[in-house]
Parts: sequence; C-alpha cells; structure tokens
Amino acid sequence: MGQIKEVMNEYGFLLSIAMILLSTKLFGLVTRRIKLPQVVGALLAGLILGPACIGILKETEFLKEVSEIGVIILMFCAGLETDIKELKKTGKASFIIALLGVAIPLLGGWGVAALFNTVNGEGLASLTLQNIFIGIIMTATSVSITVETLKELGKLSTKSGNAILGAALIDDILGIIALTVITSAADTSVNIWMVLLKIVLFFVFAIVVCIIFNILFNKWSGHSKKDLRRYVIIGFAFCLLMSFSAEVFFGVADITGAFCAGLAMSNGPRATYLTNRFDTLSYMLLSPVFFASIGLKVVLPQMSMSIVIFSVVLCIVAVLTKVVGCGLGAKFCKFKNKDCLRIGVGMVSRGEVALIVASKGAAVGLMNDKYFGPIVIMVVITTIITPILLKFVYKSKNKNDSDSSGVLDVDKFNKSETLEDTLQDLINADSCQKSLS
Amino acid sequence: MGQIKEVMNEYGFLLSIAMILLSTKLFGLVTRRIKLPQVVGALLAGLILGPACIGILKETEFLKEVSEIGVIILMFCAGLETDIKELKKTGKASFIIALLGVAIPLLGGWGVAALFNTVNGEGLASLTLQNIFIGIIMTATSVSITVETLKELGKLSTKSGNAILGAALIDDILGIIALTVITSAADTSVNIWMVLLKIVLFFVFAIVVCIIFNILFNKWSGHSKKDLRRYVIIGFAFCLLMSFSAEVFFGVADITGAFCAGLAMSNGPRATYLTNRFDTLSYMLLSPVFFASIGLKVVLPQMSMSIVIFSVVLCIVAVLTKVVGCGLGAKFCKFKNKDCLRIGVGMVSRGEVALIVASKGAAVGLMNDKYFGPIVIMVVITTIITPILLKFVYKSKNKNDSDSSGVLDVDKFNKSETLEDTLQDLINADSCQKSLS
Repeated sequence: MGQIKEVMNEYGFLLSIAMILLSTKLFGLVTRRIKLPQVVGALLAGLILGPACIGILKETEFLKEVSEIGVIILMFCAGLETDIKELKKTGKASFIIALLGVAIPLLGGWGVAALFNTVNGEGLASLTLQNIFIGIIMTATSVSITVETLKELGKLSTKSGNAILGAALIDDILGIIALTVITSAADTSVNIWMVLLKIVLFFVFAIVVCIIFNILFNKWSGHSKKDLRRYVIIGFAFCLLMSFSAEVFFGVADITGAFCAGLAMSNGPRATYLTNRFDTLSYMLLSPVFFASIGLKVVLPQMSMSIVIFSVVLCIVAVLTKVVGCGLGAKFCKFKNKDCLRIGVGMVSRGEVALIVASKGAAVGLMNDKYFGPIVIMVVITTIITPILLKFVYKSKNKNDSDSSGVLDVDKFNKSETLEDTLQDLINADSCQKSLS
Repeated sequence: MGQIKEVMNEYGFLLSIAMILLSTKLFGLVTRRIKLPQVVGALLAGLILGPACIGILKETEFLKEVSEIGVIILMFCAGLETDIKELKKTGKASFIIALLGVAIPLLGGWGVAALFNTVNGEGLASLTLQNIFIGIIMTATSVSITVETLKELGKLSTKSGNAILGAALIDDILGIIALTVITSAADTSVNIWMVLLKIVLFFVFAIVVCIIFNILFNKWSGHSKKDLRRYVIIGFAFCLLMSFSAEVFFGVADITGAFCAGLAMSNGPRATYLTNRFDTLSYMLLSPVFFASIGLKVVLPQMSMSIVIFSVVLCIVAVLTKVVGCGLGAKFCKFKNKDCLRIGVGMVSRGEVALIVASKGAAVGLMNDKYFGPIVIMVVITTIITPILLKFVYKSKNKNDSDSSGVLDVDKFNKSETLEDTLQDLINADSCQKSLS
C-alpha cells in the first residue's frame, strides 16, 4: 500500500486535472440550466471540491502554475479581442472610473474596520495602518471573472465592456501603488518612488515593444496566405515574455503584460485565427484550472459572532462601494445610467487579487489573522455575485439599446453550449476558408 | 536584486515555456528546411538549451508534469487515429515483433556489457545481474518519437505504422516484466507474480471500461448534431483517468492507458472533432514541452577513453539489435522486406523510457554510475536518429507501393508548415461544416 501511495503522489496531478475538468463542466452546465453564467459553476466547483468544503482537491504548485498561465491567456485573449481605438476613446473615462473605484472602497473598508477593529494585535503595525489596510484589500478588482462573463454574454466589445476592461487594468496599477504606500509605511525597505518609476517605465517599455512587435508581426504574418502554426507559437511566446517582464522587471501584474501583448496583435491579419486557437487551449485545460483554483484557495476559518457580523457588513460595503464608486466615475464621464450600473457591477469581483493582497499584508504585519475569515467570505461573495449581477444588468429588453453593439443578443446564450462555442464555430468556418484558399 | 531573484523564481516558468516554444519551433523549422522531421529539431532544442550544452533551461517539477500530460495526449491522439480493426489484424504480428524486439537487444546489451564490465562496484548486485540490466535498458522503446514522426509523414495509419504502434505498446509491457524480473532478483520485496497478475488485470479492466465507455459516449454524443465542448472535456477527463489508473492501480505505463482511452473513442461520430481539438492543445503547449523535456533530462558526465569506446559500441548494438530483432519478427509474420525495415527502424528510439529504466535500476543498486554516460549517449543517438531514418525508409518512389495507404504522399510534407497543418485544416473545414449545419 505504501508503494501505491507513492505512485499516487507522483501521478496525482492527472487525477486532479480530471476532477477539475469534470466538475467545472458539470457545475457550469448546472448553473447554465438555471440561467446563470457557466463561470459561476466553475468557481463553485473549486469551492466545493476544495478545502472549504469536502476537501478532495487542494492547490498544488503545479495547479498554481497552470492556473497562472490560464489567467494570462484569458487576458491575452481579452487584449486580442479589444478594439484599440475604442479602448483609447474610453481611456480617460476608465481612469476616472478606476480612481473613484479605488477611493470609495478604500474609505468604506477603512470605515468598517475602524468601527470593529479597536484592539491592536501583538507585534502588528499601528491600529490605523491595520484599518487602512482592510480598505486597501477592498480596492482590488479581479477583471478575469468579469471578462469571462462578458465573453459568455457577448458583451466584451461594447462601450461599457471596454470601460470595465480599461478601468480594471488601471485599478490594478492603483492597487499596486496603494499597497506600496502602506507597505512602505510599515516596512522601511520599500521605496515608493522606485515603485512609481518602475510603473512608468513599464508603460514606456510596453508601448515601444508592442508597437515594434505589431509592425514586425503584421508584416511577417501577412506574407503567407495561410494560417500557420508558427504565428500561434510566436504569439504565445510573446505573451509569456511580456507577462514575465511585467512581473519580474517592473513589479506590474503579469496579466497587464499579457493584455498589452494581446492588444499588440489585435489589429493584425491573424487576429481571428489566433483568438480561435487560444480559445481552444483555454477552454480545454487552462481556464477550468484557473477558475477552480480560485475556489481552491479558499479556507474557511472558525469565527466568533462579532467576526460574522463584521463579515456581513464587509460584504455589503464591498459591493456597494464598488458599484457606487465606479458608477459615479462613469456618471462623471457622461455614461448613461444603465451603463453606469453595468460598469459598477462589473468591477465588484475581488477574486484572487484580494487574497494575494491580504497575504502580502499579513507577511509585513499589517493584517490581523482573525480578519482572514471575513476577507475570504467577502472575496467569495463578491466573486460569485458578479457574474450573476452582470447577467441581470446586461439583460436588455430594448433591442435598440445604446449598448447593443455585441454581436449576438444575450438571450441567445442559453441556446447553444455557450455563446463562445457559436462564435468559435463561426471563426473556425472563416479561418478554414482562408486557410484552404 | 535579491527581491528580483525571488520574483524571478516564482515566475521563471513563464520564461521557460516561452523559451521552449520559441526554440522548438525555430529548430523544428531549421530541421524541416534540411528535409528532416520537425521533431528532430524539438529534441535538439531541449538538448542544446538544457544542462547537456548551454544550460539555460533545466527540468522542473512543473515542466515534468506538463510534459507527462503532453505524452499522454500524444498517445491518446494516436489511439484516436488508429483503426481498431487494423490494430486487431496486426495484433499477433505486433506481439511477435515486440518479443524479438525485446529479446535480441537484451542479449546484445548483455553481451556488450559482459565484454566491458568486468569489475563489480561497491555494494552493487552481482556482475551478471548488472550486465543483464544493461540489456534490459536496451529493450526499451519510446513510441512517442515514432508516432510524432509517422504523423508528420502521414504514415501513422499504414499497415507498418499499425504494426509499430502495437509492437511498441507490447514492448512496454514486456519491458515492465523484464524490469520486474531482474529487480525481484536484486530486491526480494518485489513479487513477480503480483506484477504479472496486475498486468493481466489491467487488460481486463481496460477492455471492459473502454467498451462500456465507447457505447455510452457514442450514444450520448450522437444525440446532438453539433460538436459540443463537453465532448472534448469528457474525452480529456476519461483519458486522464485511464492514464492515472494504469500507473497507480496496475503498474502499467500511463501512455498505455491513454492509448486505450483514445481507441475507445476512435470509431465514434466525434473522432475527427476530438482529434482536431486535441491536436491544437498538443502543438500549442504540451508537445513542445514534452519533446524539449527529453533533451533536458540529458546530463553528460565526464568519461574515460574505455567508456567512450563502450558508448560507441553500445550505440551501434542498440540500433542494429532493434532493427534486426523487430525486422526479423516482421519477416516471420510475412511482411514485405521494405516494411520489415520500416518496422525495425520505427522501434529504434529509446527516448525517455530507457532513462527512466536506468534510474530505477540505479535506485536498487543494479546500475554502476559510470555507465550512465554511455546510456545517455545511446538514448540521445537512437532518439535523434529514429525520425531521420524513418524519413528515409518511408520515402517511396513507387506510387503503387503496398504501404501507401497514408492519406498524403511523403514528399508533400515539406511543402506545407507540416503535414499535420494541412490535415488539420481539412479536418477543420469538415467539422465546421458539420457544426454549422
């Protein structure tokens, strides 16, 4: 038996992936049946199989790395499908949305923490810093959940979809800055100016590299009439290198690098071919692992009554401050009321980003352990509620709705496997004709 | 700088994958340009970037697990593309080919070792056992390299292709038995009868499970007119579960389980759709990592003159005994001379299988460390030479050649990116029409 156990450990990753594939698909189909996006099912699958519930799956280094590539490809595809002109148009609006979408949750989180957290734990930073840190965690936005949901709904390329995408990416940058400011207050080895400089340098780097790559790639891939595998491989490698550079050299999130790489290839002759192939790679292995992994990260600790109350209040504040903050930002930029609501809702999901921020805070003594429970609950609730709310706010009865530039109507999405499938078939047919000609 | 190094370690896998994708494609295109199969380039890429040469890439747990899934999917696809009736027809022949293809290299390896290895190292098993063990290592066959090459040449579904496929899988089983026999002689805790019983039980298990799955899957997937993603996901999960069960419960290679899973779906209405999707998953990420990993495993030790001579002799014996052994087996089964040569050549590659056997032997004291060098060289030479030789023995000038049942002629394969690309485009077009109807 000892020998079997050893072999089991060595080959256990095969079983884990099989379980993830089956459970995310099964739960996805169930949530689709009750008219919710499939991504809700995938998140629930991880939560239920993971340590939070029955515990037959746990996060391993392997799953962590596969899921990291998963979210990178997800954001790369989002970049590929983004109209860069549209994004530029919504650039200023995105910035204002992100700014208010960071400020108001920060104040909200701080306020709630200040009400409940009045006793300083041993060896922790000052009470005020701790309470501000709860606010910092509230500023996080996990764009991946929203992107997947908008893709499922066919609303990624709408005006509000673009605004969300841009704002979520800027939110990430603002989040890094906020995290650095407070960490530098608690830990003197962190230099805030250095961090800001690196962020600026990243954007200079990304713009220069992406423009050069865009010119070279379009020229090179325009030579052949056929869709060749080498275009896919080069695109993939470029995406990975940009993600790697963003994290390692500039301290910016890898998904921001991946999104830039996608943008650099979005206007080329191979964009649909690339999107089609990366979609296949994503749905077959990477994105099920990624969405399940978010659930697997969740461990529910034991909690006292006052902590439960704190959790409930935190959840309500988390949802409201993002909706109000981002919605207000959108309103300032003259979006219609309906779109303001959509944008606000699209930014609610905290996902894995908030968990990462929380654990970084704990490492430098900014987080009291007892608040991990409420934070986890807040993350789970906001993450699962976002796709559900998005579905409702994008449900338009009026066919002449200002925001209906999506290719297909939302109600259709329950008729096929997913909207993506239909889209991919169309793209497939298209690229087949191309490559056979 | 310390901080950058830490982040670099955490995100280094992104860089590794980017380097693998770029180098395998680049070397693949170079070897194609000089009219060799692309898989030679992919193998060389790993060898050159890895510890054997410049050493900028090394094998990590993550790469090992991704490459394991890579070889599983490769064999799953080979199963999917195999005509089960053809395989049954060549079943008896495959068995005889495998039997002689194990016996003659075993004797050859033992003979060479007996000539050179006359001094027993400290704490090792008896000299005779050690020398037999060198023979055991020579029996290994790495079917993956041959499968990839035959796919590239469009010869996987020929009579000789089927014979090679069957023989290589049976070779694996015989190899396990031989390894177990010798290990049980050196290590009394291994029970040979238990191992044999488990192999028999595996085939009973595989046949029963695959027949049931085949009936259920074909019925279920025949309901819809469309190609749905769920078929791909279920197929993938089934393949992983079969691979896992083979290794963990029966001690049989995971790729044998994967091949059975592929066979179980090969005659269904979704076979071309599945092949197409798994091909994409494979060429975009999994198979570059797998082929590069074989090269990454190679570490060249320092060697004395007598060891260098031993290496050269071992290489020659390794190639000749497989070609003669398997060719003779094929001749007994009334294959034409040309096909006997093809089958013999197709079984030459030792690949990662021989390395695994060698390290298992070292663990129980059957391998003297100084022979690792020659074994590694033998593996590298036989692995790289196989696709090259295969290309030559399959080059037929006569269009009415008995073995030309492959879809496309071998000479075409240099005109498109690879033959696979052309095939995939055809399959794509086919499945598009299906899914749009």
